[in-house]
Amino acid sequence: MDVIDELRTYREKDIPYSRVLSSMCTIPHPVAVEAHRMFIETNLGDPGIFRGTVELEAKLMKLIGEILHCKTPAGYICSGGTEANIQGIRAARNVQRKDNPNIVIPKTAHFSFEKIGDILRVEIRRAGVDEEYKVDVGQVEDLMDENTVAIVGIAGTTELGQIDPIVELSKLAEERQVELHVDAAFGGLVIPFMDDPYPFDFQNKGVSSVTIDPHKMGMATIPAGGIIFKDESYLRALEVETPYLTSKTQCTLTGTRPGTGVASAYAVLKSLGFDGMREVVKTCLKNTRILVEEMRALGFEPVIEPVMNVVSFRTDEAERFKEELYRMNWVISTIREPKAIRFVVMPHVTEEVIKNFISDLRRVLRR
Amino acid sequence: MDVIDELRTYREKDIPYSRVLSSMCTIPHPVAVEAHRMFIETNLGDPGIFRGTVELEAKLMKLIGEILHCKTPAGYICSGGTEANIQGIRAARNVQRKDNPNIVIPKTAHFSFEKIGDILRVEIRRAGVDEEYKVDVGQVEDLMDENTVAIVGIAGTTELGQIDPIVELSKLAEERQVELHVDAAFGGLVIPFMDDPYPFDFQNKGVSSVTIDPHKMGMATIPAGGIIFKDESYLRALEVETPYLTSKTQCTLTGTRPGTGVASAYAVLKSLGFDGMREVVKTCLKNTRILVEEMRALGFEPVIEPVMNVVSFRTDEAERFKEELYRMNWVISTIREPKAIRFVVMPHVTEEVIKNFISDLRRVLRR
Repeated sequence: MDVIDELRTYREKDIPYSRVLSSMCTIPHPVAVEAHRMFIETNLGDPGIFRGTVELEAKLMKLIGEILHCKTPAGYICSGGTEANIQGIRAARNVQRKDNPNIVIPKTAHFSFEKIGDILRVEIRRAGVDEEYKVDVGQVEDLMDENTVAIVGIAGTTELGQIDPIVELSKLAEERQVELHVDAAFGGLVIPFMDDPYPFDFQNKGVSSVTIDPHKMGMATIPAGGIIFKDESYLRALEVETPYLTSKTQCTLTGTRPGTGVASAYAVLKSLGFDGMREVVKTCLKNTRILVEEMRALGFEPVIEPVMNVVSFRTDEAERFKEELYRMNWVISTIREPKAIRFVVMPHVTEEVIKNFISDLRRVLRR
Repeated sequence: MDVIDELRTYREKDIPYSRVLSSMCTIPHPVAVEAHRMFIETNLGDPGIFRGTVELEAKLMKLIGEILHCKTPAGYICSGGTEANIQGIRAARNVQRKDNPNIVIPKTAHFSFEKIGDILRVEIRRAGVDEEYKVDVGQVEDLMDENTVAIVGIAGTTELGQIDPIVELSKLAEERQVELHVDAAFGGLVIPFMDDPYPFDFQNKGVSSVTIDPHKMGMATIPAGGIIFKDESYLRALEVETPYLTSKTQCTLTGTRPGTGVASAYAVLKSLGFDGMREVVKTCLKNTRILVEEMRALGFEPVIEPVMNVVSFRTDEAERFKEELYRMNWVISTIREPKAIRFVVMPHVTEEVIKNFISDLRRVLRR
């Protein structure tokens, strides 16, 4: 068998996105795929060679800076939200220089912070949330001490799409002179395109860094995460020297780094424009409402009234539903606290997909 | 201007690989590009969705295990050599559980170990090299103490393509019960395809992990690094729990992870086969010899007789040559100790490229 035919047999075992209601990734936009192909050979790890791609990244950073209300954005396109969060916390740790560093995160933070604690040898302290699943700022304050280097707020929690009170966290960070890292891996390209957007970004003086992933709601090709600092000084805290490259220093986590994420992220944002992004977000929010209505009709209640296009519904049978639906080739996910089934209404989750899903869910419920 | 046209203007400012004599990356093999396109949407970070791609990765791991003489290979395709080295050292640190961990590396190790020291908060101790630029095993031993968690050997140093005495390092690692990480990011897909290959891999019982990057000599698309452990236990030391994904735990550094590297790496190794890889390596070694002859004719001497397709030539004017050649659109690199100009003779560095380069170098020398 030809190797391409062999690969096809593996690829066909993957579940298509049209059956996936649990992922924060989606089918890349066609213009993203076209851009990706053009930049497939590029390596931003060697900037003197790929100087055009480097220029394009600088332009993309400005564009993202505009979205995030930052006049001096300093950052780069990386492998994804985990790398972005690592680098945000690593910069905080290196800038603050404390002996036994700790960070305070909401207990709703993404599991990657677990990794970060291990990787960076930073103690992770978890603050509880209020009845709306927003972090309790009082608890954050109580958990802070002289070794706290950063506090973390989430703009679009993985489980519920909730936004933490970043405005209050920012005031606290300023008062206590620690860094505030905002994990907006998902919400960073949703909130700015909503009506009356919550100010989660650099509008708040205390915000030091923001994770914002074009390969999620930015419909860029994987890998395209993003880490943006409020200024260059944070990048300096990440730098090592790079002999035998065309650059003198490197502040990224990885060395070799594809330019495809830069090209595909730029292509989508530039071709859709902010108005186009507003349309995409509007449709996802509309479809989220449709899903909620359909689920309510089946007797399910959302854990919180959805803030964005992530929604979870309480049920003690979450695991059973997930498994039975998976056998029917539907992918949903579950959360533990409270027990619930979870959905992310990405651009590929159209009204038609929702109707098909609901029809199969009815069959599961009748069993 | 259409966004695709705009992207093209940036892409055209990049220097084409045919003028790049300094990179360990190359033009991906056509079959790699085809495979990449087929897997462009895939995300190995969510294995229950991309179950075909997961199967393919397992198959690739077996193939790489075969190349590296390992019957129980445990690892994955990652963003590149830096992530692979981070994970190798992180696993060692977590397995060995010592209070103030240190590692001993050759002073010729890649600069990414500088990052690793900072990221993982592991002390980096540098051992000197002998007159052939191989690490001095006596010095490695002298630098070890009760807090040493790992020693590192390089199979294909970035600057000279030299191979450290892994056989001796392995004995030392076994004796002292520490981990031995082999950075074969470059050499891992060169040495096995040479005549009479040096035993740098899991043939040595003391070797715990190997970095081997398909996006270097494996001609896969970026990003495709590789980290292989001698067994599953090392992956367990890297694991965190993953609620709301289709998996229960995750041992990778990144979360979202493209399947393109797996597909493109597999496509190249499978379609060329080991014989095809031997041909590729043979051609690169032949072209390296041609470059050495041409350079000798111009009065340059290699720092060491090349071991593989990396070669550096002593000159006090290294920086001047690099800069003047860069103005002529040629990319070479320099090393500091000793002062030299450095070349990597990748598959795109053909005999014709070398002749063109030498002709331009002559012009620089006449100035």
